[in-house]
Amino acid sequence: MNIVILGSGNVATHLGRAFKMAGQSIVQVWSRNIDHAKELADTIGSEAVSDIDDLYTSADLYIIAVSDDAIRSVARQLKVGDKLIVHTSGSTPLEALDGVSEHTGVFYPLQTFSSNKAVDFRQIPIAIEANTPEDLAVIRSIADRLSERVKELNSSQRKALHVAAVLACNFTNHLYALSQELLEANNLDFDLIRPLIAETAGKINLNEPKAVQTGPAIRNDRGIIKSHLEMLKDQPDVYEIYEKLSQSIVNLHKRSQG
Amino acid sequence: MNIVILGSGNVATHLGRAFKMAGQSIVQVWSRNIDHAKELADTIGSEAVSDIDDLYTSADLYIIAVSDDAIRSVARQLKVGDKLIVHTSGSTPLEALDGVSEHTGVFYPLQTFSSNKAVDFRQIPIAIEANTPEDLAVIRSIADRLSERVKELNSSQRKALHVAAVLACNFTNHLYALSQELLEANNLDFDLIRPLIAETAGKINLNEPKAVQTGPAIRNDRGIIKSHLEMLKDQPDVYEIYEKLSQSIVNLHKRSQG
Repeated sequence: MNIVILGSGNVATHLGRAFKMAGQSIVQVWSRNIDHAKELADTIGSEAVSDIDDLYTSADLYIIAVSDDAIRSVARQLKVGDKLIVHTSGSTPLEALDGVSEHTGVFYPLQTFSSNKAVDFRQIPIAIEANTPEDLAVIRSIADRLSERVKELNSSQRKALHVAAVLACNFTNHLYALSQELLEANNLDFDLIRPLIAETAGKINLNEPKAVQTGPAIRNDRGIIKSHLEMLKDQPDVYEIYEKLSQSIVNLHKRSQG
Repeated sequence: MNIVILGSGNVATHLGRAFKMAGQSIVQVWSRNIDHAKELADTIGSEAVSDIDDLYTSADLYIIAVSDDAIRSVARQLKVGDKLIVHTSGSTPLEALDGVSEHTGVFYPLQTFSSNKAVDFRQIPIAIEANTPEDLAVIRSIADRLSERVKELNSSQRKALHVAAVLACNFTNHLYALSQELLEANNLDFDLIRPLIAETAGKINLNEPKAVQTGPAIRNDRGIIKSHLEMLKDQPDVYEIYEKLSQSIVNLHKRSQG
């Protein structure tokens, strides 16, 4: 199986490394910036390309792993006939590749990729989609080599999965950052709160989050909420987040009580 | 050392168990509801009391582990002379115990206690405070038996720590819950996102949160943000949270850039 990766960012890099570790070589890596293409290509024993017309036209799969707003334009520059072309975006519909090839699909690894941290790809869910059952089978066979958790999702489900990941991952990380900022403004070390973060995340491995919600909002402890808001009054950003999330905890509780 | 616990909720229960495990017995457990007092007292080999006037007046330490808004009234009913009395609240100042005894303090274990999950108390930070160095030394010696992470904080720092914990723990758990709700509305299982949650929390063990922020907001990917908000338009709660947190990510990034 000959695979070409278009892109050199975090997703392209982690995918490239995962393929290499799974014994699947990537024949070419394309990036507009040749240095970026080389950086990834060198680590995975591949060939770097910066002119998109220099790509082999005979590969079995072209993976477009670029930023969401660049997918369409990169796809349209790709002149490889009716080869199988996939993108790796959570929130871009399959239709974004319409007209580019008869054979299109999606290969979306759900993970928070930071360039400096290795991940265990076997546990990363990969959401796949394709125009035809045959293309889906090809995509699935490739995805199965990387992960034990391959799942067919339509574009609307995949987008819901992406939004859910933004809530549970990107936003929680930002709350960690706000928490650190507040601690440091009070001469406290972020280490004080790291065990709590681990416990909070660990707890939902075996529990439903709403069953283990704790804190002033779920207790409807208005005195404490008011005193916390008072402490945050000079940081309108955090103040509003505190207020909205506290209200949302109460609202979800009401919905659950039905 | 003779210790009395006032309260029978999550904090009282986890503290009682932790003391027992550390080889320190609790002589009495008080709760207005005798069944609640018994439930805890029985598991830790203690005596249950529901009339506050039945408490021994000769104990060395009285720990008031009740809800924040009940601390003052419980403290005022406690007629034990100038014994050492502490509360366990993050956001209640030490002064809440003024007039109750000459010897007062705070013993605040920073953790998210759910009744059904055991915790490793040795790793739980305990913030302590007292009116006098002598009382602080007594409180510290007791706290040291439970945890390796005992720290003296003043009331204002302790409150900041509590707010930081609400952000990093209570609110992140709520985001997990919202994430689950969104997934299930799209016939997707919360299990899909559990590895991502573990990875997100694990990542900040060795990194500063703001250095590993990912997602549409930090990339300033307005197209994706707009399409996510479109998906959330019928849930005003989640819509606003998505909007505020995305903006806050951008704002924090600007602050960091200085």
